[in-house]
Amino acid sequence: MMVSKSDLRFMSKAIDLSIENVKQGGGPFGAVIVKNGKIVASGVNRVTANNDPTAHAEVNAIRKACKKLKTFDLSDCVIYTSCEPCPMCLGAIYWAHIGHIYYGNTKDDAKKIGFDDSFIYSELEMRKEDRKLNTTQLLSDEAIQVFEKWDSFENKTKY
Amino acid sequence: MMVSKSDLRFMSKAIDLSIENVKQGGGPFGAVIVKNGKIVASGVNRVTANNDPTAHAEVNAIRKACKKLKTFDLSDCVIYTSCEPCPMCLGAIYWAHIGHIYYGNTKDDAKKIGFDDSFIYSELEMRKEDRKLNTTQLLSDEAIQVFEKWDSFENKTKY
Repeated sequence: MMVSKSDLRFMSKAIDLSIENVKQGGGPFGAVIVKNGKIVASGVNRVTANNDPTAHAEVNAIRKACKKLKTFDLSDCVIYTSCEPCPMCLGAIYWAHIGHIYYGNTKDDAKKIGFDDSFIYSELEMRKEDRKLNTTQLLSDEAIQVFEKWDSFENKTKY
Repeated sequence: MMVSKSDLRFMSKAIDLSIENVKQGGGPFGAVIVKNGKIVASGVNRVTANNDPTAHAEVNAIRKACKKLKTFDLSDCVIYTSCEPCPMCLGAIYWAHIGHIYYGNTKDDAKKIGFDDSFIYSELEMRKEDRKLNTTQLLSDEAIQVFEKWDSFENKTKY
């Protein structure tokens, strides 16, 4: 894997954002999204500041990039994040179809300073029945009818 | 696991939201968040409608519930979702500390109608090196310094 000077510059920017965010009362996480060698959006962790558990740096950067580019598909973009994405953010990166992740700290580094990423990763790998989080299926006969209707619907937008 | 009439009513509401959302041009997904036997927030899938790949029913419901209750901690809440959460939404549910998930359709049902949940689950279970999504670590020495600084910082808000 070739790493360019631009890659280092963008990662450095993500790390700078994480430093700045701690000064602003947020968590130590920053991310930038880049298209054609230019930053289109950045994000920092605002979970506690905004009362929003989904407001991680990567999710915020994705939402801003999509708004700016007027699309839900960032397949021509890459993301630089100061820490390896948690499962929520990694899921968001897949849904946005971002092509490459560059990260600084690992999820194990995050665990060492008290963030739960590793616990969530381990839960996701388990069968639902074995997870700490209780999960119960209800009304499957009613629910499946909506999917069947959607499947036969002609004008749906795929993503 | 005891299922109450209320549980069925809340799941029925989540399914109704998913039906209504298809009529409104969204995906076939709905969710409600309940605290003390009352719905505090609901969400539907607005990915294509809002150009926001993170706008799944569960994420939207969590964001609305947190805003309404002025907290980032929903540990006294449960969620009813018309489909088993994708990894992004499941991650969000863990971060919000929601205590119980009730779901209608499974992730395999979602796969059958063209949604990528199963692919993302399988990617998350792999080692980074084996995933389809390229992942590269950069500037780890610089990044870790921010975590070390955070760790020694007295006034941080844990979550």
